[in-house]
Amino acid sequence: MTYCISIKLDEGLVFLSDSRTNAGVDDVSTYRKMTIFNEDEDRTIVLMSSGNLAICQSIRQILIRKEQAESIWNASSLLDVAETVGEAIKKIHKRDSPTMNDLGVEFNCSFILGGQIKNEECRLFKIYSAGNFIEAGTECIYFQIGESKYGKPILDRVLNPNMNLNVAAKCALLSMDSTLRSNISVGLPLDLLVYEKNDFGISNYLSITDENSYFKEIRSSWGSYLREAFNHLKDIDWSNSKLRHSRDTYNKQLLQKKISK
Amino acid sequence: MTYCISIKLDEGLVFLSDSRTNAGVDDVSTYRKMTIFNEDEDRTIVLMSSGNLAICQSIRQILIRKEQAESIWNASSLLDVAETVGEAIKKIHKRDSPTMNDLGVEFNCSFILGGQIKNEECRLFKIYSAGNFIEAGTECIYFQIGESKYGKPILDRVLNPNMNLNVAAKCALLSMDSTLRSNISVGLPLDLLVYEKNDFGISNYLSITDENSYFKEIRSSWGSYLREAFNHLKDIDWSNSKLRHSRDTYNKQLLQKKISK
Repeated sequence: MTYCISIKLDEGLVFLSDSRTNAGVDDVSTYRKMTIFNEDEDRTIVLMSSGNLAICQSIRQILIRKEQAESIWNASSLLDVAETVGEAIKKIHKRDSPTMNDLGVEFNCSFILGGQIKNEECRLFKIYSAGNFIEAGTECIYFQIGESKYGKPILDRVLNPNMNLNVAAKCALLSMDSTLRSNISVGLPLDLLVYEKNDFGISNYLSITDENSYFKEIRSSWGSYLREAFNHLKDIDWSNSKLRHSRDTYNKQLLQKKISK
Repeated sequence: MTYCISIKLDEGLVFLSDSRTNAGVDDVSTYRKMTIFNEDEDRTIVLMSSGNLAICQSIRQILIRKEQAESIWNASSLLDVAETVGEAIKKIHKRDSPTMNDLGVEFNCSFILGGQIKNEECRLFKIYSAGNFIEAGTECIYFQIGESKYGKPILDRVLNPNMNLNVAAKCALLSMDSTLRSNISVGLPLDLLVYEKNDFGISNYLSITDENSYFKEIRSSWGSYLREAFNHLKDIDWSNSKLRHSRDTYNKQLLQKKISK
C-alpha cells in the first residue's frame, strides 16, 4: 500500500508521498511515488501514484516516453495532462487487465496530478483506475490516495483554503505520521513538495528520512501535545444524576434477560 | 457501515458502539449494535456486531432463542460463548451464503464478544465472518470492527492495559469522534458500557445522543486542544541549510526533464 496527499490552497499546492511498496508482507521495498515534470519555467507538474506497482510503473513509463512526454510538455492546460494520464491508464488496462482478471488480480491504481502551467491557476486532479478523474475545488481542497483513512481526521479538523502553505505542509506531515504509526504498509522516506503559485520551479522540496530533524521534532511534539490534551480532558463522572437517569432507560433495547427464552 | 471498539484493561472492559446502518446512501437507519446478556449476578456478556445487517440480525436472533441462549446462560467460560456465536455464524452462512453468492453479495459480518463469567477473568474476543475468533491478550488490548481506521491512531498513541477504565472510555469516545467526523456511515446514538471486573452487573452504561453534555464537551475541547497543539508546532523553515542540501539531491530520482525524451 502507500499514502499520498495533496492540498490545494490559495497560495499554491502541497504534495506529500511515502515510498513503501509491498506485494505481501514478505515482499516490501522502497519506491518513490512522486514524479515531477519541470523545465523551461513554464510548468511544474507533479504526479503521485498508488496501487499495483507494476501498473503504476507501466503508466509512468508511458508518460515519460517521447510521444506522451511531449504532450505533457506542450499541454496548455493541466486538464489536458490529466487526460493524457487517463489515456495511459486505459492503454495499460487494455494490455494487462485480461490476464490480471484471469489470475484474479484487481486492476488497481490511482493518481494525484497537480501543478501549474503558465497562464493557468494551480490545479489539482484525482485520477481513478478507469482513467476518469475529478478536480479539487473550493469545498474539496485535498485529495488522498492509498491508505487514506488513518490520516483523514486531522485534515478534516485543520485544513482551510486560505491557510499558509507551510502550515498545510505541517498538517500533511501529521496526517502521514498517524498513517505511519497505524499501518506498516506505509513507510519512509517521504517526498514533500510545497509549490508556491507562479513559481514554476521546485523551490521547496524535501526528501524526509527518519534522520530528518524537522519531521522527528514535530512527530515527537505532536505525540506529547496529544497526550497532554488527552489528560486535560475531563473523565466521565458516573455519579452525575443525568447519567444515572439514562442508565435506567437502556434495558429494553439492548438487554437480554433469561426470561426472554 | 458501523464502528465498534472494545478495550481490555487490568481493571475491566470498555465497550463502545455506534448505531448507524446503511444499505446505500439512500437507505440509512438506526440500529443498536450492542447486546448485553446479564442476569443472576454471575455473568455480564456483551456482544457487538458489524457488517451486513440482515446477517447480524439473523445471528442475534439465533443467539437469543431458547437453545443457544441457554448455552450462553450456562457457559462456564466466555470461550464457550465465543464458540456458540461462531456456530450461529456458520449456521447463517450455510443458510444464506449460496443465494448471496449468486447475487454477488459478500457474506460479511464480525463481532466483538467480551465480558466476565464468574470464576473467570474478564475476556475479550473478536469473531470473524467464518465463525473463527481471536482473543485479546496483554499486547493486543483492543479490538475494533467496522470503520476502524479513522479512529485507530488515537488508540495506538494513548492506550495501555493499566489505564483507568474511565480514561480508556474517554479514549474510545475520541476514537469514535474522529470516525464520526470523517465518515458519514457511522452515527449517533452511541452505546457506552464500562465494565468493572467482578461487578457482574451493568453499573456504568450510557446511551449517548448529540444532546449528551459530556460527549459534547470532550468533542469540542478535543477539537480546540488539537488546533492549539497544531498551532504550537514549528512550521517548516526552508531557509535552513540542511533542508537546502537535500533539495539539491532529489533530481535524479523524481525529476523529469525534457531531455529525457
